[in-house]
Amino acid sequence: MEIVFLGTSSGVPTRSRNVSSLAVRLKQRGEIWLFDCGEGTQHQLLQSDLKVGRIRRIFITHMHGDHVFGLMGLLASIGLAGAPDRIDLYGPPQLETYLDACARYSHTHLHYPITVHKHKPGVIYEDEDYRVLCDRLDHRIPAYGYRVEERDRPGRFDVAKAQALGIPPGPVYGQLKLGQQVTLDDGRVIHGQDLCGDPQPGRKVVYCTDTIYCDNAVRLSEGADVLIHEATFSHRDATLAQQRLHSTSTMAAQVALAAGVKHLFMTHFSPRYAPGNDLDLRDLLSEARAIFPHTDLAYDFLTYEVPKPSNAMAVSSSNEGSRSR
Amino acid sequence: MEIVFLGTSSGVPTRSRNVSSLAVRLKQRGEIWLFDCGEGTQHQLLQSDLKVGRIRRIFITHMHGDHVFGLMGLLASIGLAGAPDRIDLYGPPQLETYLDACARYSHTHLHYPITVHKHKPGVIYEDEDYRVLCDRLDHRIPAYGYRVEERDRPGRFDVAKAQALGIPPGPVYGQLKLGQQVTLDDGRVIHGQDLCGDPQPGRKVVYCTDTIYCDNAVRLSEGADVLIHEATFSHRDATLAQQRLHSTSTMAAQVALAAGVKHLFMTHFSPRYAPGNDLDLRDLLSEARAIFPHTDLAYDFLTYEVPKPSNAMAVSSSNEGSRSR
Repeated sequence: MEIVFLGTSSGVPTRSRNVSSLAVRLKQRGEIWLFDCGEGTQHQLLQSDLKVGRIRRIFITHMHGDHVFGLMGLLASIGLAGAPDRIDLYGPPQLETYLDACARYSHTHLHYPITVHKHKPGVIYEDEDYRVLCDRLDHRIPAYGYRVEERDRPGRFDVAKAQALGIPPGPVYGQLKLGQQVTLDDGRVIHGQDLCGDPQPGRKVVYCTDTIYCDNAVRLSEGADVLIHEATFSHRDATLAQQRLHSTSTMAAQVALAAGVKHLFMTHFSPRYAPGNDLDLRDLLSEARAIFPHTDLAYDFLTYEVPKPSNAMAVSSSNEGSRSR
Repeated sequence: MEIVFLGTSSGVPTRSRNVSSLAVRLKQRGEIWLFDCGEGTQHQLLQSDLKVGRIRRIFITHMHGDHVFGLMGLLASIGLAGAPDRIDLYGPPQLETYLDACARYSHTHLHYPITVHKHKPGVIYEDEDYRVLCDRLDHRIPAYGYRVEERDRPGRFDVAKAQALGIPPGPVYGQLKLGQQVTLDDGRVIHGQDLCGDPQPGRKVVYCTDTIYCDNAVRLSEGADVLIHEATFSHRDATLAQQRLHSTSTMAAQVALAAGVKHLFMTHFSPRYAPGNDLDLRDLLSEARAIFPHTDLAYDFLTYEVPKPSNAMAVSSSNEGSRSR
C-alpha cells in the first residue's frame, strides 16, 4: 500500500504543485485507486511511474473544479490507452450528471464499463482484502472524506508446531490457519489461535479534503496509519479558513491528535505560502508539529509506502515528507 | 503578432506535447488571444512567459475534449488571478451550454463579464486594427477554422515632401495621411497617395483544426502569412485520416499550396509518430515539404514572430520550427 501525491495545491495549479489528486497503489493486485482528479492529473500520471491502465477505482471528495476538472479527460485517455475491464467511480450525487454533460457536449464515447456509485456515509466498498468507508466533511458544498482499510490478517500459522502435535495435514490446516477450533478424529480439540502468531492488523489510510475541522474527520481517522488532511491556510490566517470552510495547519494537526493517527501528511496548500512570502509552508509545518509532531508536508510526486504495523520503524520513509517547497 | 504553440498533440497529452492550444500575442496592445484550450492549457501558460491576465479573447474550434477540457479551469484561474475587464469567447453553439453545465456542477462563480458569441461563417470580430473571420471545416462534429487579419496600414506620410510643396500644417495633414484628396486654399488639388509610401499590408494568420482537406480551409487561408493546419496522420496512414476526418501531412501541405500561404506549421500530431516508431514526425515533414517546401513542425512552446511583409526575410525565425521531437 503506497500513496503517491499527484497534486498538492489548492484552487489553482502553480509551477511546482498541481491541483488535487492522490494515488493509492495496491501493489499486490497491481491496482491504482485514485482520490480526486483535478485538471492535469493525467499529465501528472504521465510524469510518474503510475500507469493509467492500472486505475480501477476513482473516489471524488467534492465537485469543486480543482478536484474534478481532470476526470473526463482522464477517463477518455484511459479508454484510448486500451479499454480497461471497468472503472468504478464514487462521489457526490452530482458526479454522474456532471460526467454525462461533459461526455455529451464533447462527444466523448467511453467504450468500457463505468459505474458511478452514489454513496452515503458508511462502508461504500468491500472485498476480501479491502474496505472503504466515507463520511461527510464540513465544507461549502457536500464533501466526503475517505478511509481505505486493509483487512486484518490472521497471524502466521506454525506448521512445525501443528506437526509436532501430530495433527495430520489436510483440510483441517485451512481451518486452523483461520484461527478456528477443530475436533480431530482422535477426539482432541485444537484451537487454531494457539497455532497462529499475532494477527497482522491491516493498514488504514484516510483522506480528508476539503473541510474545516470537524468531528466526522476525527471519527473517520480513528487510529489510522496515515492521515492526509487538507491544510489550506496557516493558523495565522484562521479567519480565512473560517470564512471559506477550509482547515488551517493547526486544525489538521488537531484532527490527527484527537484521532490518534500515526502519521499526518498535510496537503492542499494555498499558493500564498510560496517560498519567499511572509509566511511559507515551513511555518505551517511548525504550527502543526507543535500539536502533532509526526506531521509532514506533502509535495507533488511524494511517494510513501505505508509501513506495516509490525515493522513500522524499519520501512518508514517519513523524512521525505519534511521537505518544504 | 507572435504565435506561441501551447499544445501540439492530438487526442491525448504525451510527455512532451500537450493537447491543443495556440496563443496569439498582440504585443502592441498587450493582449493574448487564445485558440483552443485543451486540458492543461493553464499549466502550459504557467510554464511560458504568457500571463493569463492578458487573455482577452478565446476562440474554440470544436467541442472535442482535447480542444476544450481546459477552458473552465482556465476561466476560473483567470478570475482568481485578478478579475479581468472581460473575456469574449467564440465557438460552436454548444460552447455556452457546456460552460454553464461545468460552472453549475462545480459551483464555479466567475466574477467578471464573459460573453459567449455564437458565430456563423464570415467576419466574427473586428476593430480598428484587427479582423477575425471563421469558416466551417470538415470534421466529425461542427468545427471552425479561424483567420486573424491585421488591417492594412497606409504608407508612411512624407512630412518633408508636404512642407516642400508649401502645404500648411493642420488638419489637412490628417486627411493626406489617409491617402485622401484635398483642395488647398490656393486652389491646388493634392492627392494624399502622392505623399505616402507604399501601403503596409497587415499580417494574416490562419488556424485550421480539426479537419480533413477541404475547400473552405483553402479559401480561409488564401494568401496568409502563416497557416497552422492540423496533420494528425502521415500520408501513409491516409486511410485512418479518411475514416476519422483528420488531415495527413500531405493534405495540410496541399491546403498551403492551393492557398498560396507563405509558411505552414503542422500541428495536432498523433502520438503514434513518437520518436523511435516506424514512422515519426520527420517523415510527416518530408511528405509535406515535397509539396510545400516552407513547412515546419510545431512543438510545444515554439514561439514565432510573424514577419512583417516588408522585411519578411530579416526577422524570420522559421528554422526553429524544423526541429523534430
